[in-house]
Amino acid sequence: MAENLVDVAEATRVSIRALVNSGAPENHARTQAELLIEAELRGRASHGLLRLPRLIDRIRNGVANPETTGRAQWRGQAYLQVDGERGLGPVIAFAALDQICHRARETGIAVAAISNSNHLGMLALYAERVAMQGQVLFALTTSEALVHPWGGRMAMLGTNPVAIGVPAQPLPFVLDMATSLISMGQIHDYANRGAPLEPGWALDENGDPTLDAASARKGAIAPFGGPKGYALGLAFEVMVAALTSSALGTDVAGTLDAESVCNKGDVFVVVEPASQAIIGSISAYLQSLRDSAPTDPKRPVSVPGDRAHLARERNIARGISVADPVWQSINASANEAAPRRT
Amino acid sequence: MAENLVDVAEATRVSIRALVNSGAPENHARTQAELLIEAELRGRASHGLLRLPRLIDRIRNGVANPETTGRAQWRGQAYLQVDGERGLGPVIAFAALDQICHRARETGIAVAAISNSNHLGMLALYAERVAMQGQVLFALTTSEALVHPWGGRMAMLGTNPVAIGVPAQPLPFVLDMATSLISMGQIHDYANRGAPLEPGWALDENGDPTLDAASARKGAIAPFGGPKGYALGLAFEVMVAALTSSALGTDVAGTLDAESVCNKGDVFVVVEPASQAIIGSISAYLQSLRDSAPTDPKRPVSVPGDRAHLARERNIARGISVADPVWQSINASANEAAPRRT
Repeated sequence: MAENLVDVAEATRVSIRALVNSGAPENHARTQAELLIEAELRGRASHGLLRLPRLIDRIRNGVANPETTGRAQWRGQAYLQVDGERGLGPVIAFAALDQICHRARETGIAVAAISNSNHLGMLALYAERVAMQGQVLFALTTSEALVHPWGGRMAMLGTNPVAIGVPAQPLPFVLDMATSLISMGQIHDYANRGAPLEPGWALDENGDPTLDAASARKGAIAPFGGPKGYALGLAFEVMVAALTSSALGTDVAGTLDAESVCNKGDVFVVVEPASQAIIGSISAYLQSLRDSAPTDPKRPVSVPGDRAHLARERNIARGISVADPVWQSINASANEAAPRRT
Repeated sequence: MAENLVDVAEATRVSIRALVNSGAPENHARTQAELLIEAELRGRASHGLLRLPRLIDRIRNGVANPETTGRAQWRGQAYLQVDGERGLGPVIAFAALDQICHRARETGIAVAAISNSNHLGMLALYAERVAMQGQVLFALTTSEALVHPWGGRMAMLGTNPVAIGVPAQPLPFVLDMATSLISMGQIHDYANRGAPLEPGWALDENGDPTLDAASARKGAIAPFGGPKGYALGLAFEVMVAALTSSALGTDVAGTLDAESVCNKGDVFVVVEPASQAIIGSISAYLQSLRDSAPTDPKRPVSVPGDRAHLARERNIARGISVADPVWQSINASANEAAPRRT
C-alpha cells in the first residue's frame, strides 16, 4: 500500500482541521490530533492517524462528543469519578489528570475512574507528561474482547494495556504495553499489508490457530507471556471494571467500530514520589541497565521508553509515514466546505 | 529428600512455638506462621515453611525484629509512609493494611509505602483478605536482584511480584505472580531435589544459559513473557523505589540471606469499588471464563485463585508436605529449653 511521508506540522494542521470540521472545538481537536501524531512519531502506527477517520465517523454518528470535557465528581478526597459523556478519550483523560495530579500533591495519591469516554490512544504520552512534572502514573484501560484466555478458544478479554511513568533523568521511565502478545492495531496493520502473522499470535473465529491476519480480525489474539500474561490482563479487566463500572469481556464495544457507544473504562492513579533523592537513584539504576553486558554485543540492553524517544527524534526530522487511504480520508474531512459546528 | 506430611494445626502450633522461642510475641508469631502455612496450603512451597529457619536466624542475627509493628505516618491524607523497623513482613504489612483499608473508605483510595521490613511472603493472602472485606488491592514488592534484563546477562532486577485482589462471588479474584518466569524459591526447590531446569529459565554466574539449578542460584532467572515481562518487572522495581525509597537492583539485600538488613520496598494500594452491582457483573464474567470452550477438553479455562483454593481444600484434609531438614529445624527451635523473650 502506498504511503505518504508527511511533515509533522502539516499532519497536525490537517488533522486538527478535520476534527474542527467534524464539530470539535480547536483546543480539543489539537489535544486529540497531537496524541495520534505522537503515536506516529514513536513508531506506534497502530495507535496513530489510522484511527482518525473512524473517530470522525464516530463523531458524525453521535457516539463521540467532541465538545465535552466530561462530568467529574469526587467520590472521596482522592477518588475522582468521571462520566466522560462520550467525549474524546484524550480530552476527558487530560482534564481528569489535571485534577488528580493537583489533588495528589495534598493527599499523596489520587485516582480517576473514567467511564463513557472514547479510546485513549497511546498511553505512553499520559505517563510521560505526569512523570515529567515529577509524579508517578499508573494507568489502565480496557478494550473490546480480542484476547483469548490461556487454554481457551474465544476472545473474552480486552488487550488491556498498562502504562507506568516514573520521573527520571535524562528521560522519564515510560512503560506502555498491551497485555496481549500483539495489539489488534498490529493485526489490522498486517491485514492491510497482506503480511502473515507469526505462529502462536492468533486464533481464527473457530478458535483454531491461524497465520492469516484477516481471519484473526474475527478471532482472538494471544495474551503475552502465557498463563501469567492472561492472569494479568484479566486482573486489569476486573480491576478497571470494579472502579469504573465498565462493561466486561464480550460486552465491551466502541473501541474499534464507528457505531457503538464506548463502554470500556480507564483508570489513572497518580502518586507522589517519596523524595527527590530517590529519582536520582532511579536514574542511575536505569543507566546501569543500559550499560550492562548484553547477550548480543550489537543490541545493548534497553529501558522502556528509550526506543520510542529515539524514533520520535528521527521521525520529527523525517516526517511521518501515513497510508494513502488514511491520508486521503483525513484530507477530505479537512477540506469540507464548512465547519459543521454551530 | 524425605518429606513429612504434617497436620495443619500441628504445623501451626510448632511454627508459632519456634517463633515465640526466638522472641516473637504470640500474636506476631501467629501472623507470621499462618502466612507461611497458607503458602504451603496453596501449593506454594517456595513461600512456605522453607523460609522459617532462615527467618529465625535473621531474628537471632538482629536483622529481623519480631516485636515491632513499624512506625507509620500519614504523608498526605491517603499516603501512609511506614518504616518497618526491621519487623516481620506480614506483621508490618497487616498493620499498614488495617490503616489504609479504613482510610480508603473515606478517601476512596489509599496507599501504604513500606520500607525496612522483612519478606512479605505469599502476596495472595493479602489480596484475598482485602477482597473478602469488599475492597480492591493492588500490591507490589521487590526482592534481591535475581532476574536478568531482556537481552542482558546479569541479574539486575528483583522477581518483583504483583498481587491484585478484587471482590467476587463465590471466591474473590486473587492474582499473585512474580514477574520472573519462575521464582528463586522454585530454583532452590529444584536444587534441593536435584531436578534439572527447563531451557530458557536461567543463566549461570557467567551469564550463559544453564539447566543446573545449583548454578542458577548464583546466576540469573529469566523475566516472564520476554521483553514485555522485563519491562513490567522493571516498571514495578522503579515504581516501588519511587514510593518507598527502597534500594534498587543489585543493592537490594536481605530477602534470602540471614545477615543483611532487608532494604526492599512494599507498596499496597487499596481502592473502593464503584458499586456492589459491579461485583455481581465481575462474578458472572469470571464464571463465563470458567465455562468457556477450552483448547483441551480436559483442562477447563482457569481463573487466578481457583487452583490455589482447590489445593487449599485438599491440603487442609491431607496435611502439608514439609522437607525433613526444614521440619527438624523448626522443631528444634520450638523445643528449645526456654523462650528467649524477657
